[in-house]
Amino acid sequence: MKKAVILLSGGLDSATCLALAKKEGFSTYALSFHYGQRHNSEIDAARAIAKSLGAVEHIISEIDLSAFGGSALTDEIDVPKDRDASILSDKIPVTYVPARNTIFLSFALAYAEVLDANDIFIGVNALDYSGYPDCRSEYIASFQTMANLATKSGVEGDGNLIIHTPLINMNKAEIIQLGIKMGVDYGLTRSCYDPFENGNPCGHCDACQLRLKGFEEAGLNDPLNYAY
Amino acid sequence: MKKAVILLSGGLDSATCLALAKKEGFSTYALSFHYGQRHNSEIDAARAIAKSLGAVEHIISEIDLSAFGGSALTDEIDVPKDRDASILSDKIPVTYVPARNTIFLSFALAYAEVLDANDIFIGVNALDYSGYPDCRSEYIASFQTMANLATKSGVEGDGNLIIHTPLINMNKAEIIQLGIKMGVDYGLTRSCYDPFENGNPCGHCDACQLRLKGFEEAGLNDPLNYAY
Repeated sequence: MKKAVILLSGGLDSATCLALAKKEGFSTYALSFHYGQRHNSEIDAARAIAKSLGAVEHIISEIDLSAFGGSALTDEIDVPKDRDASILSDKIPVTYVPARNTIFLSFALAYAEVLDANDIFIGVNALDYSGYPDCRSEYIASFQTMANLATKSGVEGDGNLIIHTPLINMNKAEIIQLGIKMGVDYGLTRSCYDPFENGNPCGHCDACQLRLKGFEEAGLNDPLNYAY
Repeated sequence: MKKAVILLSGGLDSATCLALAKKEGFSTYALSFHYGQRHNSEIDAARAIAKSLGAVEHIISEIDLSAFGGSALTDEIDVPKDRDASILSDKIPVTYVPARNTIFLSFALAYAEVLDANDIFIGVNALDYSGYPDCRSEYIASFQTMANLATKSGVEGDGNLIIHTPLINMNKAEIIQLGIKMGVDYGLTRSCYDPFENGNPCGHCDACQLRLKGFEEAGLNDPLNYAY
């Protein structure tokens, strides 16, 4: 079985990505990050998802992005609430973490090289998050080109690293419908930027709004409890 | 004054790079990593160099590359000793850390974005370390292309990120001569892959051999003490 590294955030998209990689016949190696987020519910979710979807290994890498500041997810900027979901993608949001996907993909590249794997899956989405520069297909293509020059296997000629972005052109409702078909338990996933102390999602940040809109459009109920 | 991020390992090359950036008129922001190396003398050296060369800020980022294994610098593989320095660059050495420069440059990119800096300096060298895929100019050019797609400033059109590699085509003797001219104190730098307990260099690993050969060819004495 071919090995693949899957970036697993604990959210809905990356869980669907992991299920897809498994369905495509890969033996799956999940990679999550503890990066100075203000809450740990994402990591707990990633652990539960990796287990539930049969990942061979799950590495949680400690990195300190908060040292650089610059984002509501790692810094003390307020997470915006109750914004109109239809205009969320108009500009780069304050929740954007500088170079986050570049850092995450770089670690995935290291992990892939050690595993001798040629496949990396990342659940980026250009529709719901078009405001994030590092969610666009031209960025991913460029990272792939760079990655094939960066590594032993690329230099020695037997490398053909592929960055898979199966969700990049799907909307949230389509992602949810696909995941449900593959048996993903979305009750294990966490999307909220600003959860309550008990880990329950706030229901009002951009991520909660997009998620709730996705379930609504899919004609399904979100299994999460949005009450404190 | 324009800001630049300088990757500072504590070694001879990156110290020279920092001095060059300063000489070119940049206000310098140094970035080092604690990445599961087996020794801390590199970090101590980086601190002393940043101070001595007047860096505005010096961030030491904790990252855990050892989780992935795969290298003599982070894992339990023996560091090779007393190899013929003339053949060192023939193939990828066991001291190669998977995707290391990609990870380091990704963090530098995040730091640059937060600082609103367009310039990153890295002391890679294609001659002495041609065995490392991520020390080649085609790799660096490719990273620069990717980086300009990855960030806010790139997307918003005012980004023109440059990865500076001023040492890429210089040999060790030339680097040392240049640094001496700029007043770099090489007594503060550390290059050894496998230092003694007291931090003194072993004199026999690839890095020590290249360094000693460089000083010899430059007609200078290495200020470091190679005895235990």
